[in-house]
Amino acid sequence: MSRITRTQALLKSGEALYVTDLTNIAYLCRFEGSFGSLVVTKSSATLFTDSRYALKAKNETVDVDIDVNGHHIPPVEVFEDGITVLFEKTHVSVELFERLQNAWPRITLTGRSGLVEGLRIVKDSQEIDAIRRASAISIQALTETIKSVRAGQTELQIQRILESTMIDLGADGIAFDSIVATGPHSAIPHHSPTQRILEAGDLLKIDFGAAVNGYKSDCTRTFVIGPPSQWQLDIHKQVLAAQSAGRGAICDGASISEVNRLARQAMTNPEFAATFKHGLGHGVGLAIHEDPFFSANSTAKIESGMVITIEPGIYLAGRGGVRIEDTIVVTPHGYENLTEFSYDLISLG
Amino acid sequence: MSRITRTQALLKSGEALYVTDLTNIAYLCRFEGSFGSLVVTKSSATLFTDSRYALKAKNETVDVDIDVNGHHIPPVEVFEDGITVLFEKTHVSVELFERLQNAWPRITLTGRSGLVEGLRIVKDSQEIDAIRRASAISIQALTETIKSVRAGQTELQIQRILESTMIDLGADGIAFDSIVATGPHSAIPHHSPTQRILEAGDLLKIDFGAAVNGYKSDCTRTFVIGPPSQWQLDIHKQVLAAQSAGRGAICDGASISEVNRLARQAMTNPEFAATFKHGLGHGVGLAIHEDPFFSANSTAKIESGMVITIEPGIYLAGRGGVRIEDTIVVTPHGYENLTEFSYDLISLG
Repeated sequence: MSRITRTQALLKSGEALYVTDLTNIAYLCRFEGSFGSLVVTKSSATLFTDSRYALKAKNETVDVDIDVNGHHIPPVEVFEDGITVLFEKTHVSVELFERLQNAWPRITLTGRSGLVEGLRIVKDSQEIDAIRRASAISIQALTETIKSVRAGQTELQIQRILESTMIDLGADGIAFDSIVATGPHSAIPHHSPTQRILEAGDLLKIDFGAAVNGYKSDCTRTFVIGPPSQWQLDIHKQVLAAQSAGRGAICDGASISEVNRLARQAMTNPEFAATFKHGLGHGVGLAIHEDPFFSANSTAKIESGMVITIEPGIYLAGRGGVRIEDTIVVTPHGYENLTEFSYDLISLG
Repeated sequence: MSRITRTQALLKSGEALYVTDLTNIAYLCRFEGSFGSLVVTKSSATLFTDSRYALKAKNETVDVDIDVNGHHIPPVEVFEDGITVLFEKTHVSVELFERLQNAWPRITLTGRSGLVEGLRIVKDSQEIDAIRRASAISIQALTETIKSVRAGQTELQIQRILESTMIDLGADGIAFDSIVATGPHSAIPHHSPTQRILEAGDLLKIDFGAAVNGYKSDCTRTFVIGPPSQWQLDIHKQVLAAQSAGRGAICDGASISEVNRLARQAMTNPEFAATFKHGLGHGVGLAIHEDPFFSANSTAKIESGMVITIEPGIYLAGRGGVRIEDTIVVTPHGYENLTEFSYDLISLG
């Protein structure tokens, strides 16, 4: 069943859906431009974009009619009289909402959230294949890159080598700006690479991914330059314990809050655990962060076909941090780890 | 006068501003994280982010207090009773607006657009220096990259060489995913590089930029592999005429609609001109596309201190396209072209 058809099945009679989130549009009809909106009614689906994308839309989309007249807002004629238009309230700005009210005066506008995102949570085999390929490229690129890592390189240089290697290996692009964080910078969970020079004794945290057909992989490993200090071994061991416990708890039907609890419980040093303030993991697909998000109060269950990450970390301000992250596909009887790579605190340089 | 002070000067007594756009936040207080909001009152300014960014916020921000407690919405106590909170209606989603109404029940919420963006249009000398440096890196990288361009390379390979060279030359990052479009792909105004192999006779359109301190440059040049065909020379000549005319019309006080008219008028072949459907240019700064935007019905004037691009193009579907773009800073007595590079249709490979 096509994604458009699955969307139409969610609509009640008298409802249409107005999609403005570009990732949701890419999911539903494969359009990857930077300007577009999509109207799905019970019996039709139309992509609205502009002439810059005429060729791209014609060549790449599926299951939709195409209008390249550059409408910022689809013309009201696309809707039957008296219809209720569901819009994505997480993505539609207050300004756009006001413009929709003016442009579609006799339409009832109803905000919804998570409608298309809900369809995206469980992946089909084509999607999983793309993420598997992106993950394999990531791991091969990491394996290649760390061979050349040396004290004296900058974070930006290591980032570039890693990202170039992913492209050379056939990635369509990178999944997100890779985090390459050295020394004290590794204590910053989301660090942007700088001209800082890698020194002996530094931790080196690399969080990165490749993209294949728009689908992402997400992997983190942490290394050390030269022999590790005891504190580095200590935090690495605790992060790995948490990551193993989280991974080990994953199966079809497991509750997300329970996986979260088990992973955090494995981080037994309270001083370290207090620095692990971000989420344990998240879904990954067309977006690098998507449903399901791991939190203590999630009521969601893990299902076969979900692709998720498990990424605990410990961050000691001014000294350094460790994070370990895998991209995992949930299977009917367990899981497949798409980013298999040593869990040791490997010494480089 | 600090950017926060200039913002406070825009507020009336009894008003506060709630800033959620991350680029506007970066402009006002230099914070560059992916999670944050900023409250500016007549007498205070507070950045709200989470613990991931505690170090980064402490080290990098100016003129603000910092709260790293992870509030998605700032606590209501930050506001005086009875205050009116201006929010960015272009950036605040309908969902967030509903949550603000619930979280701040006794606050009057008023949507505004373009308030901080307005402050960003005219650049100060530090900002211009950053864009000048980003532009110089871009041009040097382009000069280096085209030396190695050969038939047989893929678009993605050329993109990687160009982007790596910018990093090697000291850029903090790339301004946006570079467009490297070969052969028929060059007829797609916004093309994402693919594994397509460059062939003799192809046009090669490269639209790219570097980032320095968050500020971007934006430049496009089009090349040909081997000797040019007559049609390639023809469209190149028309694009250059339009680009020259546009550039020539830039001065302090010029009207944007007039610059737009003069550039388009210089493209005398109506068949070619009909394919130039996108805007003539745009502002560039912390965002790659920002105010002012060039359009026929703009009522804005060009002012000294603005940094703008001029980028006409002609796109023949299935055959190829040409675009020429410069980043230009408007000066009191004319302009400075930050991306000086040959305007010839240079033959490569």
